Amino acid sequence: MLRLYGIPTSGNCYKVELLLKQLGIPYEGISVNSRQGENRLPEYLAKNPFGQIPALELESGVVLAESAAILVYLAEDTPMYGQTKLERAEILKWLFFEQTRIARYIATTRFWVRAGQAEANASLIEQNLKLGTDALRIMNTHLEGKTFFVGERYTIADVALFTYTHVAEQGGFDLKPFPSIQAWCQRVQETDQFFPLPGA
Amino acid sequence: MLRLYGIPTSGNCYKVELLLKQLGIPYEGISVNSRQGENRLPEYLAKNPFGQIPALELESGVVLAESAAILVYLAEDTPMYGQTKLERAEILKWLFFEQTRIARYIATTRFWVRAGQAEANASLIEQNLKLGTDALRIMNTHLEGKTFFVGERYTIADVALFTYTHVAEQGGFDLKPFPSIQAWCQRVQETDQFFPLPGA
Repeated sequence: MLRLYGIPTSGNCYKVELLLKQLGIPYEGISVNSRQGENRLPEYLAKNPFGQIPALELESGVVLAESAAILVYLAEDTPMYGQTKLERAEILKWLFFEQTRIARYIATTRFWVRAGQAEANASLIEQNLKLGTDALRIMNTHLEGKTFFVGERYTIADVALFTYTHVAEQGGFDLKPFPSIQAWCQRVQETDQFFPLPGA
Repeated sequence: MLRLYGIPTSGNCYKVELLLKQLGIPYEGISVNSRQGENRLPEYLAKNPFGQIPALELESGVVLAESAAILVYLAEDTPMYGQTKLERAEILKWLFFEQTRIARYIATTRFWVRAGQAEANASLIEQNLKLGTDALRIMNTHLEGKTFFVGERYTIADVALFTYTHVAEQGGFDLKPFPSIQAWCQRVQETDQFFPLPGA
């Protein structure tokens, strides 16, 4: 059975758990609590030298890292990944956008705000609010007249982008100016086997 | 013919140009000078709403964005991408690592240093030097006993990681503690049709 290392409240872990559940793939969750530094312990680094959660251990013992790469691995032979070369490029484009903008500007800011570290990071948060809002604007414009990000169906681009976007307001971002994002978040939450991000 | 928007001195553009040359794919380069803000002009944003370079326009008129997604698109049917599901996951893992660590910590720092903006960004540079060096250590350990990053052959993981790594010292990083990285950089520079990063 697949083994997923991480904690359920981590957005990057949640993306993988949500996909596993929605694809009906059984797995065993193994707690690696990054908030207690367990991701820096030698026994975990031996499995995943990147030192991040999540990591996915295959039955062969091979350990995959980077949540977005894991999403592609799991979805590759399903309609949740691209069916054509162009669809795959579009989905990958959004996965890179998510990691370099949404995770970087929105997830980080939400983490600081919830951990009581907003004051200590005030100048970075100011910049993140601007750059994160720019990213939300790009998403909102893209979604106008569409149901999902790529190919008019629910894919791993939606799984990845939904996670930190739907809780952006917990980081001080305003979703009211972005009705297409709000409607899309609602559609994601109505997909089969959806479950909410724990602790959000 | 494919059209590549960007400037040759941008590392993210160079990755795509290097791959195009090495795969023997003809293309037309169209200058979009991000240092003069041309990536924010309405006519460019109409092509690439992400507002970044590079972007690749296909003969159909479709425009691809995000350099790493473009690399996958171009290499998908060649030995420079993964031949198995596991190889593809490994290559994607390194592509995400490159964008979230090497491009973020090393490329940004090199840019500031070369643009005379090191003092204005001193505290972020201090953090970037630490986190970028952590990333180099992960790469160096991975490369021990290997010729290239994935599958013992030259792939787009190498193209992406090479670009900002081989000029890391221009940003104040020290490559001397990382002999496996240095030997790998040499091997990349010996691949067929390699050409150096302009202006580096």
